[in-house]
Amino acid sequence: MPGAKLNTDLWINEYISPYDIYAHGLVRILVQKQTAFQEMCIAEAGVQGKALILDGKWQSCTRDEFLYHEPLVHPACIHQGMPQSVLILGGGEGATVREALKWNTVQRVVMVDIDANVVEACKEHLPEMHQGAFEDPRTELVIGDALEYLDNSENEWDIIISDLSDPIEEGPSFKLFTKEYFEQCRRALKPDGCLVVQAGSVGPAEMALHVRLNKTVQSVFEHVVSYSSHVPTYAAPWGYVMGSNQSIEPYPDPGATDRLLKEKTTGPFKILDGRTLLGLMQPPKHLRDAIAAETRIYTLKDPPKFFGKGVGESR
Amino acid sequence: MPGAKLNTDLWINEYISPYDIYAHGLVRILVQKQTAFQEMCIAEAGVQGKALILDGKWQSCTRDEFLYHEPLVHPACIHQGMPQSVLILGGGEGATVREALKWNTVQRVVMVDIDANVVEACKEHLPEMHQGAFEDPRTELVIGDALEYLDNSENEWDIIISDLSDPIEEGPSFKLFTKEYFEQCRRALKPDGCLVVQAGSVGPAEMALHVRLNKTVQSVFEHVVSYSSHVPTYAAPWGYVMGSNQSIEPYPDPGATDRLLKEKTTGPFKILDGRTLLGLMQPPKHLRDAIAAETRIYTLKDPPKFFGKGVGESR
Amino acid sequence: MPGAKLNTDLWINEYISPYDIYAHGLVRILVQKQTAFQEMCIAEAGVQGKALILDGKWQSCTRDEFLYHEPLVHPACIHQGMPQSVLILGGGEGATVREALKWNTVQRVVMVDIDANVVEACKEHLPEMHQGAFEDPRTELVIGDALEYLDNSENEWDIIISDLSDPIEEGPSFKLFTKEYFEQCRRALKPDGCLVVQAGSVGPAEMALHVRLNKTVQSVFEHVVSYSSHVPTYAAPWGYVMGSNQSIEPYPDPGATDRLLKEKTTGPFKILDGRTLLGLMQPPKHLRDAIAAETRIYTLKDPPKFFGKGVGESR
Amino acid sequence: MPGAKLNTDLWINEYISPYDIYAHGLVRILVQKQTAFQEMCIAEAGVQGKALILDGKWQSCTRDEFLYHEPLVHPACIHQGMPQSVLILGGGEGATVREALKWNTVQRVVMVDIDANVVEACKEHLPEMHQGAFEDPRTELVIGDALEYLDNSENEWDIIISDLSDPIEEGPSFKLFTKEYFEQCRRALKPDGCLVVQAGSVGPAEMALHVRLNKTVQSVFEHVVSYSSHVPTYAAPWGYVMGSNQSIEPYPDPGATDRLLKEKTTGPFKILDGRTLLGLMQPPKHLRDAIAAETRIYTLKDPPKFFGKGVGESR
Repeated sequence: MPGAKLNTDLWINEYISPYDIYAHGLVRILVQKQTAFQEMCIAEAGVQGKALILDGKWQSCTRDEFLYHEPLVHPACIHQGMPQSVLILGGGEGATVREALKWNTVQRVVMVDIDANVVEACKEHLPEMHQGAFEDPRTELVIGDALEYLDNSENEWDIIISDLSDPIEEGPSFKLFTKEYFEQCRRALKPDGCLVVQAGSVGPAEMALHVRLNKTVQSVFEHVVSYSSHVPTYAAPWGYVMGSNQSIEPYPDPGATDRLLKEKTTGPFKILDGRTLLGLMQPPKHLRDAIAAETRIYTLKDPPKFFGKGVGESR
Repeated sequence: MPGAKLNTDLWINEYISPYDIYAHGLVRILVQKQTAFQEMCIAEAGVQGKALILDGKWQSCTRDEFLYHEPLVHPACIHQGMPQSVLILGGGEGATVREALKWNTVQRVVMVDIDANVVEACKEHLPEMHQGAFEDPRTELVIGDALEYLDNSENEWDIIISDLSDPIEEGPSFKLFTKEYFEQCRRALKPDGCLVVQAGSVGPAEMALHVRLNKTVQSVFEHVVSYSSHVPTYAAPWGYVMGSNQSIEPYPDPGATDRLLKEKTTGPFKILDGRTLLGLMQPPKHLRDAIAAETRIYTLKDPPKFFGKGVGESR
Repeated sequence: MPGAKLNTDLWINEYISPYDIYAHGLVRILVQKQTAFQEMCIAEAGVQGKALILDGKWQSCTRDEFLYHEPLVHPACIHQGMPQSVLILGGGEGATVREALKWNTVQRVVMVDIDANVVEACKEHLPEMHQGAFEDPRTELVIGDALEYLDNSENEWDIIISDLSDPIEEGPSFKLFTKEYFEQCRRALKPDGCLVVQAGSVGPAEMALHVRLNKTVQSVFEHVVSYSSHVPTYAAPWGYVMGSNQSIEPYPDPGATDRLLKEKTTGPFKILDGRTLLGLMQPPKHLRDAIAAETRIYTLKDPPKFFGKGVGESR
Repeated sequence: MPGAKLNTDLWINEYISPYDIYAHGLVRILVQKQTAFQEMCIAEAGVQGKALILDGKWQSCTRDEFLYHEPLVHPACIHQGMPQSVLILGGGEGATVREALKWNTVQRVVMVDIDANVVEACKEHLPEMHQGAFEDPRTELVIGDALEYLDNSENEWDIIISDLSDPIEEGPSFKLFTKEYFEQCRRALKPDGCLVVQAGSVGPAEMALHVRLNKTVQSVFEHVVSYSSHVPTYAAPWGYVMGSNQSIEPYPDPGATDRLLKEKTTGPFKILDGRTLLGLMQPPKHLRDAIAAETRIYTLKDPPKFFGKGVGESR
């Protein structure tokens, strides 16, 4: 167990649902600020370590962010096989950039985040997350709107990673979970490029967003898979959706993955290797069943609606 | 979202760690009682559904218990291939029995639980969990001590399932996580039998118990694997350890699994099928690394020590 | 400190304001029920003892209810001097009746409560509160609407005690905090009768309801005083408003009060005697100032609006 | 209600008892620091305003600190009648100094606080509390130990105010609640001087500390009274003990008090005037009864023992 507990019983409560609160005891608050886009907090929690919290939602903690970021970045890169250009939409902490830079094939990583305050605070207070990624000569940081950036990009990227906070209605990332957005992503990708989207909880009570995102990406890309990773901070298994114009291998050979990673990356990896990838890529039956049964897709006219405080869309 | 919220703001707080509390809002309390062994509560939570809580630890909820119970029972049965006799140690709610009975090869399921009060309360208040399993003619319920029961059993079981609450020091299941106990299990198994143990969180901050249980089972069985399932109620990925004298296939073929399940079980399954099994059986790299690095095993002289309120063993 | 703490961390959270939650750990829940009028809970808390909670608001606890009930009943009785007939509107637990019956001059106590379920549950589960008051031959229990009962009463009562739960908008007691209601009370009183109203928090952040109730009673009665008692369960000093057609002594002589109580009551009293009464009757300066500055009164057209969850009227 | 609520659900939980938590939602944290003596936090709460919290205990809030500080300072000054020299032991926020300076008879106020960090932080962040009191030419701030300061003081003070945080065992104020300490105070006072001590909760479940402090002061001073004030932040009525060698008037005449305050102070007062003082000085019957029945006093050999987290002495 970590160091002596605070006498001040200081907690952040996150509503996972209106009936489920995950509360984390804090050791200190490093930053708390209302930016132009969202309410930002960087805090040190007793067990989870240092964390970025946006609009009350825990984005990542030093203790288990690798469980989120390695599975976000590498399956798409492995699928594509030799990523040279990577576009990251969102990704404030810099950990997504950090992972992309592990590929020695990568020549350019552009990260587009709307909130300069968040990025600056993460640079200063969360070096454990970015680990110098913003200083890498291959990295380019753009403060701006993802949609506008995509407007000026075509046939340019091997990998696009949509690493956005959940689409809370009053939050900044609302439109970036719609068919129109994914179509812009496809245009910006090279023909053999690959899109991956952080795609919400796949807990059985809360998988509606994920399931509809899968269908929405299916309306744009020929080949789509859902996969998931356990991230304790989110109190739920967490889902990703990958879309590609190339067929995606459902049973990636562990040995082949290990050889590719050894050859094309510098590592190191905590969770990812060939065997882990094979496991990640097997979505459980009830998730596959729910995707098969879903009909709704998200569009600008019918976007996802989350209202924070755990009140999301019902199934 | 579920029906109208209570005006009475009634919550059960579970300490995942001293700094992490997972709190669930209740709709009603059905049973609350101090038994001879533990404090039992059966409650209806707003989102998680009806739940069994022992000594303040959430054992299972109707909303996501399938994520715990199907992976607990079926991988061992699939590995063994034709289970006829199944011994369940613990398993109060009856959901483990329910799963075992899905195998049409099964002729006898004995469930040994120390706490008659818990079993009776679950029979009455949690029919969604046992689904009549206690009335099946193949089921035999024994109220008693698992260690004593094992003393009188030898070469008898195809499958033994250790479905015990976590080893809180003042709780009833303390000794049932030691080498001596697993040796008794091995004697009670047939030579081609298989043991499976519910084996605690595999969240990166809390995997010490699991890792040592894996090593402890390794000190008794020739072939041992760890695997895990996402169970949101536990706010962490949940681990199991399987031990056998037969080699355990690390990459079970999905098609073969599906055929076996179709032939030998009545189903239905929510999470389990061939593809899900392949995914479950791939422990992530950091867990494999931790197991490889671990040296301690649990014995009666050096048992696991958990003190409830989230204060477990440190790594 | 009381007996061993529950392993189940079971709490009721009461919102004192949207930013202030007073949470009480429970030992057991005795009753939880949605009645026709409100949500009722009777629980045993670790330190506060057995409690009645309506719509999530703590009404009274065995540990400190005397701090609420003795000051509710006796100042009006002492002022009137020889109460024979007492009408209690509300008063579910029976503790208000219990106090009224301590006057040996009292010949008849009628308690009118709208919710038979609450009264029955309190009779069964809270004997510490009513202490047999419902069985006293002088007591008459009427289940019904206070306003309707008052319609049929004129010039009948020495004392009327308005012991109603706070006027939450969706709750049952909404209209009973208006000028029209207090006018009905005055008609039902004898000319030298006295009305007393439980009248909400007088904490500096939350005294708006009390202040306006004082003014509302002033619009009906010639002589009106506010007084208050410390009740820890309410996390605030608690206010009462007394109205009379007779002049109310601001500095009641302690010796005279003690002689009156000795002669006309059976006691015993925990908080009340002559010196306590003198103290209770001195409203603090900031409360007197706020009353002097207030202009709004509550009417059926402009009633108080509280929405539960601590969201009351702003000043 | 105050401005828009934070999206980050940030709370400080104060344990009033092990079963009673008073939680306050924060708008911001201004300071959080472990000093040489205690853990200090200055925060802005949603309703209570800006607050000083030491070792997790709420010391005072801008919203209701006047309910604590005016009754702390003025009754002793009124009793003494013409305070010229005032010694304050503790009193970090500066609000006690502020009140003492309202007496135009006062020529010298010395405040002795052990924790320079707390005083500096209050100076900077809580101007609403001190209101410039530290800059008044009559004020002298001493950073040091109260016991040592008293060692060098004899027959010097008209008023001594003991404004210390509760005697948590690991806290800094432990010895300052004993007979030996109060004897030092008496020596430091002039013959007609008056001591007043902040003396803990007088809620019925928690009044043991107060009752014993009263007895302890009685073992040193000839004339001793307990009195109390409602302070919502403390979730309980709050007690003070006054000790003097002169007889203390139990029923101070309101008019005489008002005349004295008008003549000898600059004001303004929020709660205090003649009528309020008369009310404050009437301790309720159950408190007088408990004091009469108490036999234990606190000495250096048998000091009060509080362990924080609401675990105090049992009755």
